[in-house]
Amino acid sequence: MDARLRFDFSGFSASRVGEEGLMPKEVSAFEKRALAELDRLAEERRGGLHPYLDLPYQERSVAEVLDVAERVRGRFRNFVLLGIGGSALGNRMLHTALRGPHWNLAPPPGHPRLFVLDNVDPVHVGEILDLCDPGETFYNVVSKSGGTAETLAQFLLVRDLLEKKVGPRYGEHLLVTTDPESGPLREIAKREGYATLPVPPGVGGRFSVFSPVGLLSAAATGIDVRACLRGASAMDARCRAEDLAGNAALLHATLHFLLLTARRKTIFVSYLYSERLRDLGEWTRQLIGESVGKPAAGGFAGATPVVSIGVTDQHSQQQLYVEGPNDKAFTVIQVERFPRDLPIPARWSDLAEAEYLGGKTFARLFEAERAGAEFALIEARRPTCRITFPEVSPEAIGEYVHFMEVSVVLLCRYLGVDPFNQPGVESSKDATRALLGRKGTEKRRAEIEARAKSDAGWRI
Amino acid sequence: MDARLRFDFSGFSASRVGEEGLMPKEVSAFEKRALAELDRLAEERRGGLHPYLDLPYQERSVAEVLDVAERVRGRFRNFVLLGIGGSALGNRMLHTALRGPHWNLAPPPGHPRLFVLDNVDPVHVGEILDLCDPGETFYNVVSKSGGTAETLAQFLLVRDLLEKKVGPRYGEHLLVTTDPESGPLREIAKREGYATLPVPPGVGGRFSVFSPVGLLSAAATGIDVRACLRGASAMDARCRAEDLAGNAALLHATLHFLLLTARRKTIFVSYLYSERLRDLGEWTRQLIGESVGKPAAGGFAGATPVVSIGVTDQHSQQQLYVEGPNDKAFTVIQVERFPRDLPIPARWSDLAEAEYLGGKTFARLFEAERAGAEFALIEARRPTCRITFPEVSPEAIGEYVHFMEVSVVLLCRYLGVDPFNQPGVESSKDATRALLGRKGTEKRRAEIEARAKSDAGWRI
Repeated sequence: MDARLRFDFSGFSASRVGEEGLMPKEVSAFEKRALAELDRLAEERRGGLHPYLDLPYQERSVAEVLDVAERVRGRFRNFVLLGIGGSALGNRMLHTALRGPHWNLAPPPGHPRLFVLDNVDPVHVGEILDLCDPGETFYNVVSKSGGTAETLAQFLLVRDLLEKKVGPRYGEHLLVTTDPESGPLREIAKREGYATLPVPPGVGGRFSVFSPVGLLSAAATGIDVRACLRGASAMDARCRAEDLAGNAALLHATLHFLLLTARRKTIFVSYLYSERLRDLGEWTRQLIGESVGKPAAGGFAGATPVVSIGVTDQHSQQQLYVEGPNDKAFTVIQVERFPRDLPIPARWSDLAEAEYLGGKTFARLFEAERAGAEFALIEARRPTCRITFPEVSPEAIGEYVHFMEVSVVLLCRYLGVDPFNQPGVESSKDATRALLGRKGTEKRRAEIEARAKSDAGWRI
Repeated sequence: MDARLRFDFSGFSASRVGEEGLMPKEVSAFEKRALAELDRLAEERRGGLHPYLDLPYQERSVAEVLDVAERVRGRFRNFVLLGIGGSALGNRMLHTALRGPHWNLAPPPGHPRLFVLDNVDPVHVGEILDLCDPGETFYNVVSKSGGTAETLAQFLLVRDLLEKKVGPRYGEHLLVTTDPESGPLREIAKREGYATLPVPPGVGGRFSVFSPVGLLSAAATGIDVRACLRGASAMDARCRAEDLAGNAALLHATLHFLLLTARRKTIFVSYLYSERLRDLGEWTRQLIGESVGKPAAGGFAGATPVVSIGVTDQHSQQQLYVEGPNDKAFTVIQVERFPRDLPIPARWSDLAEAEYLGGKTFARLFEAERAGAEFALIEARRPTCRITFPEVSPEAIGEYVHFMEVSVVLLCRYLGVDPFNQPGVESSKDATRALLGRKGTEKRRAEIEARAKSDAGWRI
């Protein structure tokens, strides 16, 4: 059986969803443009502009990560990651997919628990730090720029805590992952002599999961990160195919671009039928939101990514999806094989609601629910495609990550926006720094405080 | 200091966000309609049509729940809830808010761990069941109709597992929460003699959190459910005020209706600044999605609810929110007081990125981030209101639940849709039953299979 991801975009076609879908001629009219963007990507890549695409091939870096991971695994009971956004979502995604959401309740002997500290909520931070005795804990501080306020605040706290509890050798509990040359974290690590791993130059946060940013915590909990990278490199080969109908990343980008601009599908829903893929949804949500969500030609400004978990969300969002605004393009993620299954015993068979369940299995029920929900979406003329994971394996995760990165970059190119920046985040960062009294922000602070006081009424 | 929720809708006004916001005259022009709907709601309530609004006053039912909860707490190490949608989201929400997301790692002595089994993913179900020795576990089977396929499948599995592992007294480990008279679960409970609790007639799943559906698991883990209900009843009084400018639920519904229909804000974002309120966001998402997401007059069909957690999502969705499509109305949830705070030690103060953080606290940083993000949204002319929780207390949760239920029902009334049904969910349920071979569905199954085979190409 084919172990690779499979893609079915037929539910985006007019033949399945009527005028809400796309006509073959609309798509073929776009083919030249699509292939030109693919060429441009390849050309730029040769020029060194897309280093994230080469992460699957950094054997020396991977060996270094595995070496650190082995030492951590043998010695520490807890791995605490201090990071946020692109320095946390990839870690969470690999962990949930390949170790499971309940890992911390019963990790196998010799494997650390993993905590991802991706917020500064004082209750949250305090609870996690309380759960981890510093003497048994390894802290990985991750920030590409090295200046992320949330991560620095956590580091300031953890460093003092560690020194107090562990003594002068506290530095052995720390590793800093940051830019190889510049930034505050690099400077701090140099001064205080902490171990470090580099974030390769030119690799932005949301594209960094297969750099030391995402790989160290994964390897430390025993994930086969080389298998992830094998999956990514296999997909890399598929993503080079100069064939719109045969290159899934190119077709996925093209169809989403046309659904957005020609059918006004402004919400992209990832509908994942696997609890383990929940954080893969969150990772995708950041990748789309931050890459695509910016002013584009034609008055467009990207699409809003939404994550749903099947079947659970059938009892929460399916009503909206089927009868609400037809403003969404759906990507259903199907998992074909689960490493275990459970029987549904036959009983109470005089009751119609129980009778047809008896003798089936949970995997069969889960799959029938997936198929039923997908059918209902298409019947209601909601454009819906499907990606099939043969199983939730490191290879499949690697394939998906590379596929989605390429597809999102191509979609940005179609829209004429920069996939790699996030200028819209600066305004809130500036305002926060002003409110905290960073030097040189006094005027901004006065402005913010004046605005907040302006009385527009409507306060209760 | 005022212990009640506070509301600031000024960020929805044209004076704050320009023409993306609402003019006072638009709102006052709607006042008569708003007060008429409020009257109608009161009138219908007196006629018994809104029993969910009276859940805060069911003292006998609460006493019964507390009695069961006390017995469970003393005897069992695990509380496993079998339920989905409205029979799970409220439980999760109370638990995460008031016991915290890490409860199961270290529950206080005499308190059970809580697992909510709200999916049929075989890996997920298997993992949770493996973690819970049946001899130490209490299972609460929850389905209002009693015919929910996912819950019945879980029950069929758990019942046999229990009987096998625990023996003839296995029934002491089970309690069924369902309709007091009808449905398969009621019938099964009668036949086999299981303990039961009733879901009050006329209370739909997503409005049932303050019935035994949501209260038993909460009380079993030691949550002060009476305090939740006190909060709800305090809000109930506030929600009766015949004054658009002074009734938060009425104003919230009215402003969202106008933003949806007159400003095309088709996405409602809950931006919650508290890790503990994450599942309150998910609960809200179901309430809005299933209640409002249906065809309405004027070509509207509701709004798509989205959940964001601050500050984490500032590093994932803030770019999109500030520079992406201006199609959203934001509700920021602020928490004023946290039960603990953590210092940010002063160090590395020659580095500008660290200097301004030193000497502050995590709560101060968190609040400055909230204020900065909110300011940036309003500066970018994104309509943004704020709800302030003085603290994450049972009372505040109770207030919010009642507020949001009333507000969503009013919004549905404005749109002319039934807040309490979910007809759009039936099509996927039907398809699933057909695919599993339930009697009488043969024709539907053939139709589904034929459709799936229809070749539209675009398969890779």
